[in-house]
Amino acid sequence: MRADPDLHLLLVGPVEAAAGVIDALTPAQRTRITVRATRTAAGPADHAPRADSTVRAAVSAVRDGAADALVSAGSTGATVSAAALGFGRWADVRRPALVATLPAVSGPVVLLDVGGSLEPRPATLVGHAVLGAAYAAVAHAVAAPRVGLLSVGTEAGKGDRPRRTADPLLAAAPLPCGARYVGLVEGYDVALGVRADVVVTDGFTGNVLLKAIEGAYAMAGGPPASGGAPRAAALLGVAGTVVVCHGAATPDDVASGIALAAHLWRRRATDRVREQIPLLPGGDNTDQDAVDPPARSAGLPAVDPPARSAAHPAAEHREPERRP
Amino acid sequence: MRADPDLHLLLVGPVEAAAGVIDALTPAQRTRITVRATRTAAGPADHAPRADSTVRAAVSAVRDGAADALVSAGSTGATVSAAALGFGRWADVRRPALVATLPAVSGPVVLLDVGGSLEPRPATLVGHAVLGAAYAAVAHAVAAPRVGLLSVGTEAGKGDRPRRTADPLLAAAPLPCGARYVGLVEGYDVALGVRADVVVTDGFTGNVLLKAIEGAYAMAGGPPASGGAPRAAALLGVAGTVVVCHGAATPDDVASGIALAAHLWRRRATDRVREQIPLLPGGDNTDQDAVDPPARSAGLPAVDPPARSAAHPAAEHREPERRP
Repeated sequence: MRADPDLHLLLVGPVEAAAGVIDALTPAQRTRITVRATRTAAGPADHAPRADSTVRAAVSAVRDGAADALVSAGSTGATVSAAALGFGRWADVRRPALVATLPAVSGPVVLLDVGGSLEPRPATLVGHAVLGAAYAAVAHAVAAPRVGLLSVGTEAGKGDRPRRTADPLLAAAPLPCGARYVGLVEGYDVALGVRADVVVTDGFTGNVLLKAIEGAYAMAGGPPASGGAPRAAALLGVAGTVVVCHGAATPDDVASGIALAAHLWRRRATDRVREQIPLLPGGDNTDQDAVDPPARSAGLPAVDPPARSAAHPAAEHREPERRP
Repeated sequence: MRADPDLHLLLVGPVEAAAGVIDALTPAQRTRITVRATRTAAGPADHAPRADSTVRAAVSAVRDGAADALVSAGSTGATVSAAALGFGRWADVRRPALVATLPAVSGPVVLLDVGGSLEPRPATLVGHAVLGAAYAAVAHAVAAPRVGLLSVGTEAGKGDRPRRTADPLLAAAPLPCGARYVGLVEGYDVALGVRADVVVTDGFTGNVLLKAIEGAYAMAGGPPASGGAPRAAALLGVAGTVVVCHGAATPDDVASGIALAAHLWRRRATDRVREQIPLLPGGDNTDQDAVDPPARSAGLPAVDPPARSAAHPAAEHREPERRP
């Protein structure tokens, strides 16, 4: 609220929890906050079905037009499920991906998946490479992103069966935004970013890797000088702007997640990434070198959010540019 | 050579490469170095069969009694294969494990496997938990090690199928050295060590994780204050002291690997870890609370190295204590 004077917050959760947030604000800031009361808070545990209902209420708020984007520090699985159900999944995306951004020497490194698909098929890794390349270009303005597949060495043939299968598929796959596949990369490359701008891996490996790097930075006394990357992940593959903070998120982490959601929504990032998806193998546009978004096929489902209702003040503060 | 006046080095490789090392030494230090010439150097690439012959020559040097321990920065796969073939594999260990040690807040964290078994069965993860617990106790003097299984969350049921299968197996498995299984842990725990002293994972995840943490420390301007953990991994499951440095190892990394090998050999670590192996499920000793090494079964193969030859001076400088 302090860092972004254009930000309006809709808090979805128990009123007692919201009161704690509101009490810390100035009267002027309080005009930019709204509460949608639910009985329970979203929690990190997958086995708390009532917590899921909070996430579903937040998805409904976006669908209603009461909010533009959703930020959750609740269960990742519940958030992804509620978003896929409420917003709809993109037609050509086998599995939505959670995308993290890490600070690196020469700029940001985009890492995906970090927890959406724990056991992806090789074709899903290819789909995620397309999503990650488009996201690096759209969200972080990386020109001609270099895309690598995470493995235990850089020579072709290194890695387990899923990696050995996906490597030639990736080498043959058309990638958007002038991206090119640079082959296998290693753990160092995720932290240093020297060899790739986008690192593709399964959600299990990506999740433990991201947390290990965060732990290492905590051990080393804070993030590096080139830090400032959001400590939250964007969800790609559903027709809405969704950011997931982890269950152990600090207030600063949640603030960085909210800032990421605002950044993505203002850049129309979800829609612009979506426009690259017909490039996926099996899609209806295989123009390998397209940098500009390709013309949308009439056969693809619309991904614009439902028409906004003006019933809730939080929906009125800003309207994004819409595609003609 | 400078840090450890009791160390003798046997260099196995091309004489030209050895000459570069010897030139940097004082005359007194040169009396502690021996060269076994081979035509090629051990290289990082698995597809260089001639490089493998260097590793095999180094294994032979240990078998001959010309050296006590083997350190390789060549191909991990070639080193593990040559060591398993030359030294023999422990009977009850399904797959040898590469074990790394990381600096953490409250002491070292042992991470395994970091590249030996890329796609382990759940029973192999259990075997590696036993190895890791024994290694933490023997090599790092960790009392009653806490053993965790790496996953994407800490609640039971979190993770992919291999993790969900291994978790209850680990909860039921007898662990040596007073170790106890603490359940699922996350990436943070590998770097911070707050929840576990031993973190078990598959070799693919462990390898990329270890390299990512090294990369993060490099990004953050060096390892943390409590650093000094060896930047090399010990091989457990073969009847010899073997340390693997990665292919991109710096001279300091190789020196830390040599120091680790000397440390392990002086502590009789390989033999002492081996003595815990009958505790493995299916072994002949299932005493869950045994802290002292159990009596060895007559049915198990001997793991003592072959009788030493005095033919090579490097073999004479020290004799380890042998079990009665």
